[in-house]
Amino acid sequence: MQNFHIIDSDLQLQQLLQKNILNPRIVVVTDDVVSELYLNNLLNILSDFAVQTVIIPSGEQYKNWDAVTKIIDVLVANQHDRYSTLISIGGGVIGDLTGFAASIYMRGMPWLQIPTTLIGQVDAAMGGKTGCNYAGIKNLIGTFYQAQAVLIKPDYLNTLPEREYASGLAEIIKYGMACDSEFFCWLEENMLALKSRESKILQLAITTCCAIKSRIVQADEYDHGLRRVLNFGHTFGHAIEAVTQFKVYLHGEAVALGMLLATRLAVTLKRVDLTVLRRLEHLIQVAGVLPKSLQMHFDVCELNNYMSQDKKNRAGQLCLILPCALGAVTVVQGVEAKCIEELIKEYASS
Amino acid sequence: MQNFHIIDSDLQLQQLLQKNILNPRIVVVTDDVVSELYLNNLLNILSDFAVQTVIIPSGEQYKNWDAVTKIIDVLVANQHDRYSTLISIGGGVIGDLTGFAASIYMRGMPWLQIPTTLIGQVDAAMGGKTGCNYAGIKNLIGTFYQAQAVLIKPDYLNTLPEREYASGLAEIIKYGMACDSEFFCWLEENMLALKSRESKILQLAITTCCAIKSRIVQADEYDHGLRRVLNFGHTFGHAIEAVTQFKVYLHGEAVALGMLLATRLAVTLKRVDLTVLRRLEHLIQVAGVLPKSLQMHFDVCELNNYMSQDKKNRAGQLCLILPCALGAVTVVQGVEAKCIEELIKEYASS
Repeated sequence: MQNFHIIDSDLQLQQLLQKNILNPRIVVVTDDVVSELYLNNLLNILSDFAVQTVIIPSGEQYKNWDAVTKIIDVLVANQHDRYSTLISIGGGVIGDLTGFAASIYMRGMPWLQIPTTLIGQVDAAMGGKTGCNYAGIKNLIGTFYQAQAVLIKPDYLNTLPEREYASGLAEIIKYGMACDSEFFCWLEENMLALKSRESKILQLAITTCCAIKSRIVQADEYDHGLRRVLNFGHTFGHAIEAVTQFKVYLHGEAVALGMLLATRLAVTLKRVDLTVLRRLEHLIQVAGVLPKSLQMHFDVCELNNYMSQDKKNRAGQLCLILPCALGAVTVVQGVEAKCIEELIKEYASS
Repeated sequence: MQNFHIIDSDLQLQQLLQKNILNPRIVVVTDDVVSELYLNNLLNILSDFAVQTVIIPSGEQYKNWDAVTKIIDVLVANQHDRYSTLISIGGGVIGDLTGFAASIYMRGMPWLQIPTTLIGQVDAAMGGKTGCNYAGIKNLIGTFYQAQAVLIKPDYLNTLPEREYASGLAEIIKYGMACDSEFFCWLEENMLALKSRESKILQLAITTCCAIKSRIVQADEYDHGLRRVLNFGHTFGHAIEAVTQFKVYLHGEAVALGMLLATRLAVTLKRVDLTVLRRLEHLIQVAGVLPKSLQMHFDVCELNNYMSQDKKNRAGQLCLILPCALGAVTVVQGVEAKCIEELIKEYASS
């Protein structure tokens, strides 16, 4: 079972860190935005330990091998062994990069995750998928490597910019759409409260998402089957991010677009009722995930090309996760590129 | 249990390959020496499949991240998914590089190992340690990732140069010294036959080593305890390789030196009888592992520095594997750098 903790005080954070650190030598990895906000606080909490810090520039465009080597170089320069601990504090990018470095340095060293974004807290930090982009392809290289513990402090979300917070709401909606119709209905009732970061509602949403993910990862850690359902919206989403060079959409925005495209495709293929699409559209709208003036301006062929590089594909066949009912998805193979092209054109012009 | 097979014909190799390949898309990785000898033969055996080839220059100095990316770039360029298969055919370097690439491409794809050197067949190919050198440090980055099958064809050894063959004998001796006194005695009786590559004796030695390693890896895949015994001779050995820029000694030669140093240290520390050292020295001499004119000319402080970066170390304390009897070793922590310095000086001048 994934070892995650919802935390409501610095004291609790300190106790959990101390409990999970084997040796007194630590490297903390963060980005330049989070470091301004929370690094000093964390270093105070860790004042009993010898700590070095690595600061990676913020943003998906820095999620590359150079950033991984930046972490490894600090480990080498300070002669860390495989019993030191890496701690990541930041969003999904920092978590994935740090986890990748932790998994390959001396073939694996302990790693603790402190996610500070909503996406990180409900999704990215759970489940041990690490990695970085390579040759412009999202997460092309990486490992499955579980953090020793995931320490989730919802208080960190108070400083999260509106657009990034909304981006996290997309992943929360994903859990409802892909795995849990009851949770989807709960979200329909509570989205306004969730959007305004009402503490109890937020905590309940995070706990529910982590519990769903934990259950699924336990059943299929290495992504051979069941775990794919959590990739709903991500085949289109990752391709949309890549085709726009990771500069136009936040990850959750691309996933929201991806969920809309996948659901519209499922409606076209008569795999799901139109009402499911309408309810998804409405929930995404209330959550305010997508900018109002959304324009999808990119080359459809290029998008198809990126989708053909998706990790779920097998023997050249596109593999999509499409909804079959509210709260349920299935794996669909062999949807033709032409069908996708028409979908995108229709969507872009609507 | 590690899935290894001792093979005596091309037909058997073909059958085992076909049995272990999921999808008809394959990338074969080898080096420029092995490709001249065995690549065409392998490609003939694989003629039913779509195959690309990656050829890495031969030698430890090419065991680096650039070589790993060379493999990944071919996977990307040919749009391989995580159900294609990587096949490595070559020595330990090719196996480690290919396994590392297989473990991180799309977070893991199938990999088959065909070791062509004695070191590969008795040691490197078994047990799933992958990786490459980094910042001049041996195997600093890598993963634990098991090959789907290890296909061992002793016939390949017929073309192995004398010095490389002898280098493999060092690893065979290691199994006797570290794990199995009976096997050590058998080696004392059969070393001349083994040295002249007598088919039955060779096959028996390979099978014994693979069985020992398989048993130990099964008990401790991630190298937390028991598996360290197989690192006997490697703390000194790796440092000797690194301090001479991987240009002076073959891996097995460095390991032979490492075993001699570790055993001499154990004698000095009164942890083992002098007779064990004498028998080891004699067996190494009969095997012809070490060049007669051996000179150890390197900076002792620098050697100590490399040893301090060994993956077994913990919290800055050197961790050595020293013999306590014939066929048995123990982990010894906290041997002082000064003690090592004296040992090396004494050894170099003797």
